[in-house]
Amino acid sequence: MDYYELTMCYSYFLNKKHHELCVFDVFFRGIPDGGGYAIFCGLEDIVDYIKNLSFSAEEITFLRNKKQFNEEFLNYLQNFKFQGDLYSFKEGSVMFPMEPIITVKGNLIECQLIETYLLTIFNHQSLIATKSLRIVRAAKGRSVMEFGARRAQGSEAAIKGARASYIAGCIGSSNTLDDYLYGIPALGTMAHSYVMSFESEYEAFKCYSLTYPDNSLLLVDTYNTLKSGVPNAIKVHNEVLKPLGKRLKGIRIDSGDLAYLTQKARLMLDNAGLQDCKITVSNSLDEYLITSLIEQGAKIDSFGVGERLITARSEPVFGGVYKISMTTNQGKLVPTIKLSDNPIKTTTPGFKKVYRLYDVNHQAIADLVTLQSEEVDETKPYLLFDPFFIYKQKQITNFSKELKTVLIFKEGKLVYQLPTLQEIKNFTQKEVDALWPEVKRLENPQEYYVDLSQELWDLKENLLKKYQK
Amino acid sequence: MDYYELTMCYSYFLNKKHHELCVFDVFFRGIPDGGGYAIFCGLEDIVDYIKNLSFSAEEITFLRNKKQFNEEFLNYLQNFKFQGDLYSFKEGSVMFPMEPIITVKGNLIECQLIETYLLTIFNHQSLIATKSLRIVRAAKGRSVMEFGARRAQGSEAAIKGARASYIAGCIGSSNTLDDYLYGIPALGTMAHSYVMSFESEYEAFKCYSLTYPDNSLLLVDTYNTLKSGVPNAIKVHNEVLKPLGKRLKGIRIDSGDLAYLTQKARLMLDNAGLQDCKITVSNSLDEYLITSLIEQGAKIDSFGVGERLITARSEPVFGGVYKISMTTNQGKLVPTIKLSDNPIKTTTPGFKKVYRLYDVNHQAIADLVTLQSEEVDETKPYLLFDPFFIYKQKQITNFSKELKTVLIFKEGKLVYQLPTLQEIKNFTQKEVDALWPEVKRLENPQEYYVDLSQELWDLKENLLKKYQK
Repeated sequence: MDYYELTMCYSYFLNKKHHELCVFDVFFRGIPDGGGYAIFCGLEDIVDYIKNLSFSAEEITFLRNKKQFNEEFLNYLQNFKFQGDLYSFKEGSVMFPMEPIITVKGNLIECQLIETYLLTIFNHQSLIATKSLRIVRAAKGRSVMEFGARRAQGSEAAIKGARASYIAGCIGSSNTLDDYLYGIPALGTMAHSYVMSFESEYEAFKCYSLTYPDNSLLLVDTYNTLKSGVPNAIKVHNEVLKPLGKRLKGIRIDSGDLAYLTQKARLMLDNAGLQDCKITVSNSLDEYLITSLIEQGAKIDSFGVGERLITARSEPVFGGVYKISMTTNQGKLVPTIKLSDNPIKTTTPGFKKVYRLYDVNHQAIADLVTLQSEEVDETKPYLLFDPFFIYKQKQITNFSKELKTVLIFKEGKLVYQLPTLQEIKNFTQKEVDALWPEVKRLENPQEYYVDLSQELWDLKENLLKKYQK
Repeated sequence: MDYYELTMCYSYFLNKKHHELCVFDVFFRGIPDGGGYAIFCGLEDIVDYIKNLSFSAEEITFLRNKKQFNEEFLNYLQNFKFQGDLYSFKEGSVMFPMEPIITVKGNLIECQLIETYLLTIFNHQSLIATKSLRIVRAAKGRSVMEFGARRAQGSEAAIKGARASYIAGCIGSSNTLDDYLYGIPALGTMAHSYVMSFESEYEAFKCYSLTYPDNSLLLVDTYNTLKSGVPNAIKVHNEVLKPLGKRLKGIRIDSGDLAYLTQKARLMLDNAGLQDCKITVSNSLDEYLITSLIEQGAKIDSFGVGERLITARSEPVFGGVYKISMTTNQGKLVPTIKLSDNPIKTTTPGFKKVYRLYDVNHQAIADLVTLQSEEVDETKPYLLFDPFFIYKQKQITNFSKELKTVLIFKEGKLVYQLPTLQEIKNFTQKEVDALWPEVKRLENPQEYYVDLSQELWDLKENLLKKYQK
């Protein structure tokens, strides 16, 4: 946690404010890469953190040695457990800017202490899931494999990033630990060093094929893809695999002009009767390069995507924030607002929840932010308010609603059954399927509506007026 | 580790190549952000990994269940320990493209298995140290604090990134765990939520100053920096701190036009007799914004730098690679080369080491890559060869040499005493001080020379000729 969580909490404690209730929201203001939607990831790790958050004797000693906190406060921390309520979207959800994705209600100390970790996990894992989905969609049904561990920002980023990419639709990862920890298929065959450790490329391919006769996938660009790699792969198929009744499974090309090389290689393989041999490519791929390769008619069956996925290279920050929306004033929990000259930085006050509204074909129309206490009656027409521009209103009829905000912790107790990874992956697919194609465009997508209820709009407007005075 | 390390090793094992010796180098080809030099970080974690690398019973069971490896191989892994030699630059070193930073000599399996982790740690920690140093230098002596945990790519990236930034010259971090683990000063005071949890900004500042009378640093932009925040801070100084014989330590501004606001705030503070009150700013800073703020005459004493440092946002990937340079051929360790149409992707063969050469004023002239067996005699003129263009040669005289390549593990045993963090930080400062200002420019720096010895140049040329045939 950031140190200021502790300095603030100590001041709350000394000022006897630490039992005061409050509400915080996690939300974000913009989607990376100009995308139309984002994917929420990280809930499993957040739940794990909150369940186990405590201060060890060593940590208390460390804090004591800072000579900044008194013994009563250190004693309070030593007995600390999160005992608040936490609401959240389900992991793998499609999410949009300016809606509360996670809402925490508790006393000032427990809400404040969890800020940093919640944001770190929310931001990192949502970033990678959102980026991965862009790449998976660009591949238009071809497989995408996550190959980025060596360029990730540390080993945790490699492991958790691979998990997020799997949720978003990747078929597997190069990272063995993700298979061990999460059952995500570990993928990969050989590096250039394997080929170079043999006296010839042919010898390397032969040995590899004898080791893995059922799964011989050969890296063909160590010396020269078309003059040496592909011919040697075909030769090994004919001389080594065929006599065993096996077939060459695939080739991988990791350098050069992938559009040209894959078309030439496809022809060579087809002419050798290897129409079933798959072509995999890698080398600094992302959604733009994949789109371009497909447009150029490259013959590719699957993509291995590394650094540009695992770091979300084009925009490596997800801007999730944690803002207070209710505070205690004279013993009562009341809405609060953070003002800013920049309207998008003015917060939405109150203890809120989010609905997704669907049309009769289960396509998402809008997300609706309401107060927790409100009910939405889908049998009647409903009026939506733009959160920034009052003149933008929209009446909808014939809709169904889905509550996106789920209770996860109630008074510190986990009351939510965490889904399996496969369930999360399937859920993400379902969520994305319910979006209009216009929202899913890679470039210049239609902006999805995230609107406020009348009651919430009135609350925000009244608070703005009050502060303007 | 990547799964292909295991699939390759199994094939080495089956083909009885696993006792064959080889040499691998970690190096990189380009410096992020067009910089003139990079900082090597991560050695401490790499040493820790190699020392402890082993396969647990659960991990062996997991691998057995993949139904891809035989029992002999699983047994080999169960007894695995790294028993090779590892050479490395010291942590915190200045480093340049195309020179071997880490060199590993061992059998094919032990060299291959450590690839992924070595690269992940090398790439991440060097990336953040290199970026941080750019930011620290842009601040021209003003303090830079690392504030990025919430936007880091996971919690490990936050922790290790803060350590790398400290090595590069940051004075501390917001991350409490970095203080606990490494003794890096934990910094931070309050968030907007602290101010908002009180009935008024004045009340919040008053309570905070009473909690921390010796260290009252107030966040002044929750409502309106110049109309409310700074006046309230001055009022609290006069009404709360002064009567206690204390002074307002500082203010922080986290939004708005920082050039304008800091100049106005400085005037207001000075007019109130608070010339000693420091001004800290934060909000999406990096080396370019800091340079611009200083040029505009902003009145800033210290910078809190977050997401753009901790993710190296402008270029979030460090391209370190791990390439084989010696293999065993008919029982003999021989140099090998990876060819490419792209000359920079052609590797330098052989078992190598690196010298830094200095002039009489201890300014670095060039790095020299030689074979391990070579001696450099600094009493005689020495001829340097450009690794790509033979016509570029340079004779130097009157120089001193420093061997950059240090033995860390000898036959699997750690023979190197790891320095303390403070020693690493001081070493980095010394390394940077030895560079010409032209190399240290933020934009369009002079390219530093990394040259080959005559013997190494000849070896490379002969291998190239051999393969071209």
